[in-house]
Amino acid sequence: MRVDLRTRAGQVLQRCQKLALFSEDAGSLRRTFLSAPMRDCHREIASWLQPLGLSPRIDAAGNLRALYPAAASGAPRLFIGSHLDTVPNAGAFDGVLGVVLAVALLESLDGKRLPFAIELVGFSEEEGVRFSTPFLGSLALVGRLSESHLAKTDSRGISVREAIESFGLHPAELPGAAMSRDTLAFLEFHIEQGPALENLGLSLAVVDAISGQTRLEFRFSGRANHAGTTPMDLRHDALAAAAEWIAAVEREARRTPGLVATVGSIQAKPGVANVIPGDVRATLDVRHASDGARTQAVAKLTHLAEEIAARRGLAVAHTLLLEQPAIPMDPFLSGQIETAIRAAGCKPHHMTSGAGHDAMILAGSVPSGMIFLRTPGGISHDPAESVLPADVEKALECGMQLLAQLASSS
Amino acid sequence: MRVDLRTRAGQVLQRCQKLALFSEDAGSLRRTFLSAPMRDCHREIASWLQPLGLSPRIDAAGNLRALYPAAASGAPRLFIGSHLDTVPNAGAFDGVLGVVLAVALLESLDGKRLPFAIELVGFSEEEGVRFSTPFLGSLALVGRLSESHLAKTDSRGISVREAIESFGLHPAELPGAAMSRDTLAFLEFHIEQGPALENLGLSLAVVDAISGQTRLEFRFSGRANHAGTTPMDLRHDALAAAAEWIAAVEREARRTPGLVATVGSIQAKPGVANVIPGDVRATLDVRHASDGARTQAVAKLTHLAEEIAARRGLAVAHTLLLEQPAIPMDPFLSGQIETAIRAAGCKPHHMTSGAGHDAMILAGSVPSGMIFLRTPGGISHDPAESVLPADVEKALECGMQLLAQLASSS
Repeated sequence: MRVDLRTRAGQVLQRCQKLALFSEDAGSLRRTFLSAPMRDCHREIASWLQPLGLSPRIDAAGNLRALYPAAASGAPRLFIGSHLDTVPNAGAFDGVLGVVLAVALLESLDGKRLPFAIELVGFSEEEGVRFSTPFLGSLALVGRLSESHLAKTDSRGISVREAIESFGLHPAELPGAAMSRDTLAFLEFHIEQGPALENLGLSLAVVDAISGQTRLEFRFSGRANHAGTTPMDLRHDALAAAAEWIAAVEREARRTPGLVATVGSIQAKPGVANVIPGDVRATLDVRHASDGARTQAVAKLTHLAEEIAARRGLAVAHTLLLEQPAIPMDPFLSGQIETAIRAAGCKPHHMTSGAGHDAMILAGSVPSGMIFLRTPGGISHDPAESVLPADVEKALECGMQLLAQLASSS
Repeated sequence: MRVDLRTRAGQVLQRCQKLALFSEDAGSLRRTFLSAPMRDCHREIASWLQPLGLSPRIDAAGNLRALYPAAASGAPRLFIGSHLDTVPNAGAFDGVLGVVLAVALLESLDGKRLPFAIELVGFSEEEGVRFSTPFLGSLALVGRLSESHLAKTDSRGISVREAIESFGLHPAELPGAAMSRDTLAFLEFHIEQGPALENLGLSLAVVDAISGQTRLEFRFSGRANHAGTTPMDLRHDALAAAAEWIAAVEREARRTPGLVATVGSIQAKPGVANVIPGDVRATLDVRHASDGARTQAVAKLTHLAEEIAARRGLAVAHTLLLEQPAIPMDPFLSGQIETAIRAAGCKPHHMTSGAGHDAMILAGSVPSGMIFLRTPGGISHDPAESVLPADVEKALECGMQLLAQLASSS
C-alpha cells in the first residue's frame, strides 16, 4: 500500500501538470470560469474516472460532479474537491491539486464501498478573475448564486448567465446544482499558499478557520502643484501622506501578532514626474483569525490615516469594499483530520487560513474541513508554485485514513 | 500714462481669457503643439497687431513672430515673448500672459521707434505635452531642433515632422526659424507658478537663474505574494519599501534649504488589493539653484533607496531620465530688470525659477532675462490659475521702463 500511494502521488503531480496545459494563454496558465480550456479539463478528468465506472456531469454552474456510490442506497454523501479555475500566470496546483487528490482517493479505494457516497466536485470558479466575483461555483452548491451574480459582466460585457448558456448549460437548472440534503460534510485539500508549514518543516496542517477580512479604499486629497516651484513647507503632497501611512500600516501589523495588513494597489494623480501628487487612492487589506483583533486594527489604521492627513492639511476618506467575518471549520471534522494526519506519520499543525477558499462558502451550509499541504517557498499564484511528492503521498495517506475514520464513525 | 497702463492691464487679462477659449477640449483648456485651436490663437493675436501695422508670420516650427521695426535700419533686435501652448486642464496665464504682455508693450510704445527692433514671439511648444518633449518652439529659434526631435511621435503615431506639414508648414524651412545674428537679447514675462512672491507680498521678481534638475526612475523589486497567507516578517513588499523611501525623500528635502524633491509618479505591480506588491516604479524630481547641492542630494537619495532595499531584502535600480544644470540669466539684463522693477514702484525680489522656461533654451545663445509675476495661491497648471490686475499693470510699467533703459544704453 505504501508503494502504491507513492506511485499515486507521482501520478497526482503528473495529472496536475497535464491540466496546466489547458490554458487560455499561450505559454502560461490562465483558465477562468467556463473558458474553452475548462472543457478540455473536464474531458481529461472524465477519462481518469471512467475506469472507476464513473461518468461526471457538469452542473448548471459549470462544476464537475461525480458520484462514487455508497455501500447501501439511501446513505448520506461526503463531498470532496476544490476548484479548477486559475488566476492569470498561475501555478499548476492551486485548487487543481484538491480535485486531482480526490480522484486519487477514489482510485485508492479500489472499488471498496463505504457507508457514505463520495461526491467529487471540481468547482468552476473560485478566483474571481473573469467576473471580479469569487466563489461562483461553490455558491451554486449552497443555493446562493443569485440573480445579481448572474447579471455580472466580464471585460467583454458577457454576463455570467450568457457565459453559462454559451458553455451549453442552462441557468434555469441552477437549483439542481445545489447539494442534496443528505450531505454529510465537505472536505478540501489545498496548498497552503504561504510559508508557515515550510518554516515548521511539516507536511500537512489542519485548517481551524478561515480568516476574516476587511478591504477598504483610502483616498488622500491634497493639492497638485508644480514640483519645481512649490517649496517643501508649502506642499500638500498626497503621495507623501500616503507613504507615511503605508509605513505606519506595516509597523502596526508587525507589532500585532497574527495580523496581516497590505496596501496592494496605489494610484497617484496626476501621476507625472514634475507635478506634486494631489490625489492618491490606495487599498488596504486586513486579516486576522480573530474578528475583534481585525476590527480593532482597521479602526487604528483608519485613525492613523486621518491623523496623518490632518497634520499635513489634507483630507482623507475611506470606502469599505469587503467585510467578511472569520469562518470556523467544523470542530469534529478538524479533530478527525488531526487524527488522520497523525496516523499518516505527520505532526499536525493547526492554523488559520489567510486566504479564502470554497470551504468557507460551504461551511455556511454543511460541516466543512480543510487540509493544507506545505507550499515550497510559500510561492503561489505564480508558475513557480510547487508541492513536494512526499507531501502529496502524506496527503493521500491522511485522506485514506480519514475516510476509514469517518466510515467507522458513521 | 498711469491710467492708460491700468486700462491696458485690464485688456491684457481679457485677452488671456479670450485665448483660453481656443481649446482642444470642451469645457477646459488644452492647446498643444500645432493643434487646430493654435491657428485660432494666431489669428486672434494677428488681429491685435494689425492696428500697429504689424502682420505676424508663423515660422516653420509654428512659432508666431512679429517684427516691430527699429528707428533705423540695421539696428539689432530684442526678442520678447513666451509660449502659446498649454498643459491639459490649464489656466489662462501660463505662457500666454508673456505673449499678451509683449503685445501690450508694443501698443504702449504708441508708434515710438527705439534704437532696436522688437521681435514678438509666441512659442508653439514649451510644455512637452503632445510629444513628451518640451521646448520644441524655442529650440527652433536657437537652431537646435534636430532630426531626432522631428522623428518623435505623439500618442496617435504622428511625428513632429508630420504635425508641421499638416499645419501647412515646411520642415525644410526650419533654418529660417532661427534667430537672426543681430539679436540683442531675449526677455520673458511669466507667472511665477509658485508661492514665493505672494508670501513676500511682492508683485514682481527678477529671475537670476533657472534651477538645475535631475529626474530619475527608481524600481524596487521585491516579491509578490498572497496578502492573506504571507506573515509580515516574511514579506519583501516593494510598496512598503518605496513608501519608506518616499518618506525619507521628503525628510531630506525638508532639511536641505532650497532643495525640492518630488515623487510624482508611482506604479505598483501586480496592483491588486489582495497581493503584496512585488514591483514598484517611482519617479524622483530633484531641483536646487546650486548644481552641487542638487548632485549631492541625488546621491544621498539614491543611497537611501539602496539602504532601504538592502535592509528589506529587495533590489533597487535607477535610471536617469533627465539631468540639466542650472542656467543663469544674463547678469546685465537682470540688473536692468531690477532697476526697472524699482522704477515701477516695486521692491525687486531675486529668485531662482524652479520651473523650466523658454528663456532657459534661449540663454544658451543670447543674453536672456526673465520677470516673474506673483501667482495667487501659487496655483498653476489648473483652471484656478490667476494673476492680479495690479501686478499686470506693474509688469507693464516695468516693461516700459526696461525698454527705455535699454534704449538709452544702446
